Amino acid sequence: MKNCIIASSSTIHGSGPLEYLFDSLEELYTNTEEILFIPYARPGGISHDEYTIGVNNIFKKIGKRIMGVHMFEDPIEAIKNANGIYTGGGNTFLLVHQLYKNNVITTLKEKIESGAPYLGTSAGSNICGLTMQTTNDMPIVYPPSFMTLGILPFNINAHYIDPDPTSTHKGETRETRIKEFHKLNTQPVVGLREGSWLRVKESTITLEGELDARIFEQNKAPYEIETGKTLSQLH
Amino acid sequence: MKNCIIASSSTIHGSGPLEYLFDSLEELYTNTEEILFIPYARPGGISHDEYTIGVNNIFKKIGKRIMGVHMFEDPIEAIKNANGIYTGGGNTFLLVHQLYKNNVITTLKEKIESGAPYLGTSAGSNICGLTMQTTNDMPIVYPPSFMTLGILPFNINAHYIDPDPTSTHKGETRETRIKEFHKLNTQPVVGLREGSWLRVKESTITLEGELDARIFEQNKAPYEIETGKTLSQLH
Repeated sequence: MKNCIIASSSTIHGSGPLEYLFDSLEELYTNTEEILFIPYARPGGISHDEYTIGVNNIFKKIGKRIMGVHMFEDPIEAIKNANGIYTGGGNTFLLVHQLYKNNVITTLKEKIESGAPYLGTSAGSNICGLTMQTTNDMPIVYPPSFMTLGILPFNINAHYIDPDPTSTHKGETRETRIKEFHKLNTQPVVGLREGSWLRVKESTITLEGELDARIFEQNKAPYEIETGKTLSQLH
Repeated sequence: MKNCIIASSSTIHGSGPLEYLFDSLEELYTNTEEILFIPYARPGGISHDEYTIGVNNIFKKIGKRIMGVHMFEDPIEAIKNANGIYTGGGNTFLLVHQLYKNNVITTLKEKIESGAPYLGTSAGSNICGLTMQTTNDMPIVYPPSFMTLGILPFNINAHYIDPDPTSTHKGETRETRIKEFHKLNTQPVVGLREGSWLRVKESTITLEGELDARIFEQNKAPYEIETGKTLSQLH
């Protein structure tokens, strides 16, 4: 019953926030004009109100209204009653910390699994994986757990970026980091490049956007999946 | 009584591992030929043995022998008895997880504070800060706490890298990540560029190496400290 868009990034180079997804969002949210927004990830540390107002200004362009989950007395009831949900990007540690603190992990998971249209971008996509352990974010707060929603049977690495062969920097590449992850963890990781998204419909997962995705499985060489192809076999 | 070299990176572009630090290490470890190595961070997921053998091959060049802490029955006793310690880089989450699991956090802190010569590189430097919350690493394992040794009265960001003005990538820059950190945390952060290190002698902290360091304090614009200058006033 799932109905999700799980995107690497809200924004791609050369266009406004979410613009590259507008057609897909009109289809996703076709039956609702009001979307519940989860602003907990606070990109750059902006407030929940600022973030929600900014997102409302974007969704206005496709005729949708945004309500922030923080505007409700009871966030659990707000999620239960929503006809569509969007979780925006920012810091994944902060997002997961707030989801646990507000006790909405189970409700959000059940809501998405019952078919409520869901958009995640960046941190909001990371939480659809089994754990948040392949985030690129800084651990600015200590969440009670790294377990996330498990809407997907694998982990997401958002903003996936290929190693720069001309770089002289000695910090780990993204690929090295994911290799370290697989020394201790077994689930596959989908490296989603900016401009790519996963379209989840019932039990089918399809890669969309212009770019291919890079797949990391334990004890296997990384490989590419072409856009338009299914990832339903990956687990 | 502290006597530490806290370096951004073990390796800089164009030279072998630790080579740029050899003169400083001969001075740091002048009174010992045997150094206790803490390999828990496992760069790229290599084993404790592989990591220790590799580091021994480097230290051989300056006439020192390496013993891995994992080679001892009792890691607490091994640290207590050491005449010099080196904690290498890799994954900071894994390093901190292992320090707690082996119950050596307090012993290591006391040993360093009692004046044992200590070298940290990358993850091994991050743990000298108040918390590990300004690491760049992936959360591949869930440590029992983000609190670290507090040898320094601030946090470290190792491998600090300036924003690339030509980049089209929408992932957060290092500066944006540290700004997010300061929305929730008050301690200063020292962005140490590769090739820079902090020389800690008693209560004096001096920036060494060819490059300046970038300092981030809550509610202040980031600023540079010149190499050769003290950071002792920062807390």
